[in-house]
Amino acid sequence: MTIISGSVAKQLIKGALLKENVDQQVAEYVAEGLTSTSLRGVDSHGIRLIHHYLAGVKSGRINPRPVYKIEKKMATAAVLDADDTFGHAACMEATRVAVEMAGEFGSGHVAVRNSTHFGAAAYYSIEIARQDMVGMSFTHSDSLIIPTNGKRSFLGNNPICFAAPVKNEEPFCLDMATSITTFNEIRRLRETGGTAPEGVGADSEGRPSTDPNQITMLTPVGGYKGYGLSLMVEILCSMMTGMNYGPHISKMFEKLENKRHLGQFVSALNISAFQEVDVFKERMSLLVNELRNEPTLEPGKQVMVADDPQKRNFARRSKEGIPVTEAELAQFRKLNETYKLNVELGS
Amino acid sequence: MTIISGSVAKQLIKGALLKENVDQQVAEYVAEGLTSTSLRGVDSHGIRLIHHYLAGVKSGRINPRPVYKIEKKMATAAVLDADDTFGHAACMEATRVAVEMAGEFGSGHVAVRNSTHFGAAAYYSIEIARQDMVGMSFTHSDSLIIPTNGKRSFLGNNPICFAAPVKNEEPFCLDMATSITTFNEIRRLRETGGTAPEGVGADSEGRPSTDPNQITMLTPVGGYKGYGLSLMVEILCSMMTGMNYGPHISKMFEKLENKRHLGQFVSALNISAFQEVDVFKERMSLLVNELRNEPTLEPGKQVMVADDPQKRNFARRSKEGIPVTEAELAQFRKLNETYKLNVELGS
Repeated sequence: MTIISGSVAKQLIKGALLKENVDQQVAEYVAEGLTSTSLRGVDSHGIRLIHHYLAGVKSGRINPRPVYKIEKKMATAAVLDADDTFGHAACMEATRVAVEMAGEFGSGHVAVRNSTHFGAAAYYSIEIARQDMVGMSFTHSDSLIIPTNGKRSFLGNNPICFAAPVKNEEPFCLDMATSITTFNEIRRLRETGGTAPEGVGADSEGRPSTDPNQITMLTPVGGYKGYGLSLMVEILCSMMTGMNYGPHISKMFEKLENKRHLGQFVSALNISAFQEVDVFKERMSLLVNELRNEPTLEPGKQVMVADDPQKRNFARRSKEGIPVTEAELAQFRKLNETYKLNVELGS
Repeated sequence: MTIISGSVAKQLIKGALLKENVDQQVAEYVAEGLTSTSLRGVDSHGIRLIHHYLAGVKSGRINPRPVYKIEKKMATAAVLDADDTFGHAACMEATRVAVEMAGEFGSGHVAVRNSTHFGAAAYYSIEIARQDMVGMSFTHSDSLIIPTNGKRSFLGNNPICFAAPVKNEEPFCLDMATSITTFNEIRRLRETGGTAPEGVGADSEGRPSTDPNQITMLTPVGGYKGYGLSLMVEILCSMMTGMNYGPHISKMFEKLENKRHLGQFVSALNISAFQEVDVFKERMSLLVNELRNEPTLEPGKQVMVADDPQKRNFARRSKEGIPVTEAELAQFRKLNETYKLNVELGS
């Protein structure tokens, strides 16, 4: 393992995107989204995705210069057609629209259509929470998890994300996939020769398996509850947007020339319409700190609240940089050369 | 086991409430909420609760004749002060307000304060979905589940409920508690001499236990994910309402003279502001039926979607009646006599 600093990673990503004729604002959102996600320690959805995205721009999947269409039939409900651009940029635009509506009318909801992969859902919800609102963001994804009693994957690993501001610290944020584990974790186990825990995945016939080389599908978290939550997200992202659902969604890593036509959903609730914002944030601080001070069963363990690990990662990685493998660093060096970016990567 | 018909149960419940000077509309909502919940097979939150509620009215916990205060600072956000009445009635009023706002502005959100137990969350979300909107309803509850790494309960078993309309059938509805199992199930295991599955509960010292007589606290579903979802619901129900949180919430079955001061949160999203309602419902029907027809790993099993078991129960129990124990039936007979209701219970 070696490291790359967040600012260097961001420069490289933005530079490469601009050289691929990606719109300035779109490139900024993608670079910021990927870099902040890696700084928060969510490596699966961070800077390593840039190579996949650049391939998507070159193959025609991702539109580098979108013209958004925003249809607002009612004061707090909009449909944003992303024109097949980066999900990061489209959903930051959706976030802006949702916050604007919530500022005037108390809430705002934007269904995003014709979008692509949007990285980590936390990027949008946290942005909303920083503006003293409750933020929610959802995306569907291609088929990966097996419905309860089923034998093949149907819905994606559809994440739920919810954020709210806290006094004297970054917002509370829950950003959870609806499977027990991620497919990235299965890949890591393949590489390290490990065994998957019981119950997290199944082989291509739908039979439970702990062999990461046999696992092709994942199990929903909490059985029918995770499956139900995944379906809830699917309804927001497919039915509210008109996009395809579950097995009809094109695969992320296949046929890069195909448009994804993904759907996303972003909501903002204006806290000041319900409670005094200062009181809300003060009480949030009491709540999360009371939890953090709860006694533990095992010494050395700690009760945390959602996003505490990400906040710790952010503090450390902002100083020390983002850990990457030698192969990943080499990919970034190549990016620097290919696009003649002249970014100083350090030794 | 014997049975009581839904209409008889509803008459008894409403009759007893009216004799306790409960407001006509409040009594109707409570009777309808409890009865429909039992017809749907959710016995833990159904008609058996009436005796507890009547005790709460007599002890002064529940206000039988509330005067609601509705504060609307913005077009789609309201705070409803329930004046300590039944959660069922207050949240049906909140549902009405949310749907009205959503009809005009695309969405509506009502934070309910100074409320009491509201029964099953599905009652409100389904009511919203029947009006061609996406419905969400949440309540917090007193401390019962242990946060990840902790040794004592902090948050309640806070449920998440989401409903959406489907063509040619009752709405899709996900209504899930954020623990793996319910405390009712633990009580049932105590009565039947059963053993709890590994990992669902802990004893009073926070140590994992499978002995239902030792279990006093529950484990969140999916570990930190269920814990995070419970915290999300707590934020909506405590922070948005100004009510107490987690361990500071008064206990449901203790000190019946104390007001509960519970918080709830109800949201409606107007589907027509996002997509054609007919198309939405048609596509919902395709989605849920495609899932129901998925192949299964084991013969005899079936892939279902959330609320399918409840819909089946409703169809059967509407014809055959609600199964109750002899002791429960005796309680209803006593209600009939005590309040001189003259309802014909059958043989």
